[in-house]
Amino acid sequence: MDKILNKIKKFRDERDWMKFHNPKDMAVSIIIEAGELLEHFQWKTNEETGSYVKSHKSEIADELADVGLYLFELADNLGIDLLKAMSRKLEKNKKKYPVSKCRGTARKYNRL
Amino acid sequence: MDKILNKIKKFRDERDWMKFHNPKDMAVSIIIEAGELLEHFQWKTNEETGSYVKSHKSEIADELADVGLYLFELADNLGIDLLKAMSRKLEKNKKKYPVSKCRGTARKYNRL
Amino acid sequence: MDKILNKIKKFRDERDWMKFHNPKDMAVSIIIEAGELLEHFQWKTNEETGSYVKSHKSEIADELADVGLYLFELADNLGIDLLKAMSRKLEKNKKKYPVSKCRGTARKYNRL
Amino acid sequence: MDKILNKIKKFRDERDWMKFHNPKDMAVSIIIEAGELLEHFQWKTNEETGSYVKSHKSEIADELADVGLYLFELADNLGIDLLKAMSRKLEKNKKKYPVSKCRGTARKYNRL
Repeated sequence: MDKILNKIKKFRDERDWMKFHNPKDMAVSIIIEAGELLEHFQWKTNEETGSYVKSHKSEIADELADVGLYLFELADNLGIDLLKAMSRKLEKNKKKYPVSKCRGTARKYNRL
Repeated sequence: MDKILNKIKKFRDERDWMKFHNPKDMAVSIIIEAGELLEHFQWKTNEETGSYVKSHKSEIADELADVGLYLFELADNLGIDLLKAMSRKLEKNKKKYPVSKCRGTARKYNRL
Repeated sequence: MDKILNKIKKFRDERDWMKFHNPKDMAVSIIIEAGELLEHFQWKTNEETGSYVKSHKSEIADELADVGLYLFELADNLGIDLLKAMSRKLEKNKKKYPVSKCRGTARKYNRL
Repeated sequence: MDKILNKIKKFRDERDWMKFHNPKDMAVSIIIEAGELLEHFQWKTNEETGSYVKSHKSEIADELADVGLYLFELADNLGIDLLKAMSRKLEKNKKKYPVSKCRGTARKYNRL
């Protein structure tokens, strides 16, 4: 994780792009890439998705990577340890979605 | 990274949620969370963002984490090594955005 | 359409909000609202969606309205006649997706 | 508005696409198009946006139209009168954001 972060920052700084990478534009970039990822599944049923992901694994990997590249850098720019933040959020989710109430249902926590 | 992935899968499987976690709904979830992240920066100038992120670091960390939790799991569900995919995408970006043409400009690669 | 636009602008100007309504923040707002709309369908199958939309018509109408309010205003702020733009885009789509090639298939125009 | 709706439905039905146009995929399509719209403003300051929108009016009009085409159709498919829904939502917003508290500030209603 540190290794990829160093690569990201080297790529950015060689291009003198930090001046563009304010938090708002980074968040904008994350959602734009998330839209490109989602486009792969537009209009598809789960059955169609299954065979599609097999034949388009590399394209989908690129879109996942694009989201990841901005996400990792934004967290780092804000002084946030992403893995720790994920671990902490998962603990919160455990309380929000207790197994006893959530097992097998996708209902929102405020409708449990 | 493996550690957080194991936690994510344990959380999911204890709730029997794999049946909901098809690639399309995972991509839908990533963009919904990306929208909640972006909401923190809505209507704000870069100056306002600067002081806002200091006083709302924990809330922003939670939103980054939400994107990360879905992103890491989706990559894993598809048999994609996210870190490798990011590394590979960064290599592609280096070719798409050569330093000599891109230094200091945010222009799209197809308009360089 | 003119009537609703006048109401939107009156609402905005009474609050002195035009200074926030630059095109970028308007586009950011459209996608945030689109995310809230999409949240209603997250994790749902088509069958579940069918009964859900009947029991949540008013909430969904509010989310559609939020997208519309920003969309109509942004078009107007940019001096774009939205209905004309839609009509023109539909003509383009007719060429991009000829009936003979598209009937019954959701394939992207570049894969026809 | 009725005229454009009729054109949209004619375009869709000539291609036998209603079977793909379930509410979830329509909401997915709205957010994908909203991402393409937002891409025009990515990395740009308000100053840069100003000159950009003048020289790219037609491209931006197309993206606004794409959001509108899906938005109008989805509302119609759900039996929702979009203009009425917008008018009603504006009335709600008036109560949520009273002029006396909101004038000149972009603060969220729950932080007023």
